[in-house]
Amino acid sequence: SSGQNTITATLFPGDGIGPEIANSVKEVFRQAQVPIQWEEHYIGNTVDPRTGSFVTYESMESVRRNGIGLKGPMTTPIGKGHKSLNLALRKELGLYANVRPCLSIPGHKTRYDNVDLVTIRENTEGEYSGLEHQVVRGVVESLKIITRQASSRVAEYAFHYAEVHGRKRVSAIHKANIMKKTDGLFLQCCREVAENYPNIVYEEVIIDNCCMMLVKNPALFDVLVMPNLYGDIISDLCAGLIGGLGLTPSGNIGDNGLALMEAVHGTAPDIAGKNMANPTALLLSSVMMLKHLGLNDQAESIHKAILKTIEEGKYLTGDIGGSAGTSEYTKAVCENLQ
Amino acid sequence: SSGQNTITATLFPGDGIGPEIANSVKEVFRQAQVPIQWEEHYIGNTVDPRTGSFVTYESMESVRRNGIGLKGPMTTPIGKGHKSLNLALRKELGLYANVRPCLSIPGHKTRYDNVDLVTIRENTEGEYSGLEHQVVRGVVESLKIITRQASSRVAEYAFHYAEVHGRKRVSAIHKANIMKKTDGLFLQCCREVAENYPNIVYEEVIIDNCCMMLVKNPALFDVLVMPNLYGDIISDLCAGLIGGLGLTPSGNIGDNGLALMEAVHGTAPDIAGKNMANPTALLLSSVMMLKHLGLNDQAESIHKAILKTIEEGKYLTGDIGGSAGTSEYTKAVCENLQ
Ligand SMILES: CC(C)[C@H](C(=O)O)[C@@H](O)C(=O)O
Ligand SMILES: CC(C)[C@H](C(=O)O)[C@@H](O)C(=O)O
Repeated sequence: SSGQNTITATLFPGDGIGPEIANSVKEVFRQAQVPIQWEEHYIGNTVDPRTGSFVTYESMESVRRNGIGLKGPMTTPIGKGHKSLNLALRKELGLYANVRPCLSIPGHKTRYDNVDLVTIRENTEGEYSGLEHQVVRGVVESLKIITRQASSRVAEYAFHYAEVHGRKRVSAIHKANIMKKTDGLFLQCCREVAENYPNIVYEEVIIDNCCMMLVKNPALFDVLVMPNLYGDIISDLCAGLIGGLGLTPSGNIGDNGLALMEAVHGTAPDIAGKNMANPTALLLSSVMMLKHLGLNDQAESIHKAILKTIEEGKYLTGDIGGSAGTSEYTKAVCENLQ
Repeated sequence: SSGQNTITATLFPGDGIGPEIANSVKEVFRQAQVPIQWEEHYIGNTVDPRTGSFVTYESMESVRRNGIGLKGPMTTPIGKGHKSLNLALRKELGLYANVRPCLSIPGHKTRYDNVDLVTIRENTEGEYSGLEHQVVRGVVESLKIITRQASSRVAEYAFHYAEVHGRKRVSAIHKANIMKKTDGLFLQCCREVAENYPNIVYEEVIIDNCCMMLVKNPALFDVLVMPNLYGDIISDLCAGLIGGLGLTPSGNIGDNGLALMEAVHGTAPDIAGKNMANPTALLLSSVMMLKHLGLNDQAESIHKAILKTIEEGKYLTGDIGGSAGTSEYTKAVCENLQ
């Protein structure tokens, strides 16, 4: 709305269908008069000697300066020893929490109704340490690292998130009956943080049992917080409950409110450039971004327009049973804005 | 049936509801004239100095001698440093593969119809190494160990199982995009074994994606083989698809055909001794045991009687929506035997 100061946000359209779905967000933001100006960066084709990775110095600086960004899917360059770009971004920007609200979309029927939970994943350590070696021929080991610092930080984020969003319960997911020391430390940190939030119910659920309960009755859960790998697994499981990664937003949170929202689905090279991609996950991620910035009215209005468009069912993309193009779907969302 | 030689099998009734559900199996076997004689052992109350664990020397010898056993749920004794009895059994008996057929039960409605898949879990290493330590204060690590020997062995078991059971596809579940060396070795072993089974389709699925696909469309899977922790997680997820651990059989396989079948649900101390427990998981595990022994007619007959009893719905236990006691349900199963 005119009169508001313009906010600058970094945009990584990404590879494959990335540019098309990023265009969709840009178009919807224009129509919704969101006071955001994009600073677009492409990362991924060559190693930047200043960062030592495929993530360029300029793109990192852009996110750090703006404190906020939106990211499409990215292909990890092929070749030995190249780390996933997603992981490089998380690491270099210190994005310690991955947040995925998982909300049923009324117009998209799955086996589950009224799913409404949030997974919060420790995003920097655990099984993702990258520390692996061969002990002797035929025997290899990977190190899972759990630190008090990272565990307390993500636990604090989870409880704070629950409080701010009016959620009632935080479940820490673990396998401390087996990994007594690593997952044990994670739980200990969660318990300590829980003490400062007496109004939020705290519980601990073993990961295998958690997965069984999630598929039987997801309504048992509210906010889930967990180490890296469990978060990777459970957030995808939860996305499956409501229809898949094409319909699920995601956000990565760092220090001082730094946030990079992203669509976590793939680059879908087979349909890239064909006006066939579903921009919903990136649109919903952009809604998360607006909420994070406190632009709640625009966030609400765009969110409602997306849900309405899916509920009307006239302009759906192929992946969710329609035959509309990315641009027709985007147009319908724009028309449903109020 | 008379004339057959009697087979001796070890029975660990276990704790809590264990004795009641074990009685149910004994009763059904009697009625079905299964040529099995039980050798009952109790494990769990004191440390046997000869084994150094709560598993007694006699009970181990019994399983080793008989080559076959059935096990109810067991409480792990409380106290520092006591390993789960389940884990101790797997380790001491070298039970390297955990097999869980996951089949929809027509009379028990869940969100999923016609689930028909089998999870095969490496049962001895991986994240279950027990190797953990504190590096410095606030930093702990766990070691995940993957060996060529254990990986090839479980891969071989999975393909052999697929072949014998007329199954068409084996999916290896992994996170080798992150744990390139450990899960990479696991995959390499699976690929090598796959080459010897040209009639079975082999594929590799990343665990997060696997969980998403399982909740969206379990029919995509047939036989799944995976390292220990992923197996722990995915087998419980799959149990959830068809109704939970109370309805899912499980078998642990070792060298030379050694097999210990088990109900993997808990001991349910709150309802123990009250004639309220559901013996279905242990009954289905006993069916697996009979198949393993080649007693296919009795296995079939008992399996059908269980399914019929659940389908009729007149004598169900409380956990699956009925009000019958363990003994009434068992009686109904016996009456449905043909
Ligand atoms: C692409 C892959 C490295 C990544 C992960 O494992 O974290 C993805 O699954 C995710 O969840 O963002
Ligand atoms: C009880 C526990 C140690 C065990 C495991 O983690 O393996 C259980 O979950 C299982 O699947 O048998």
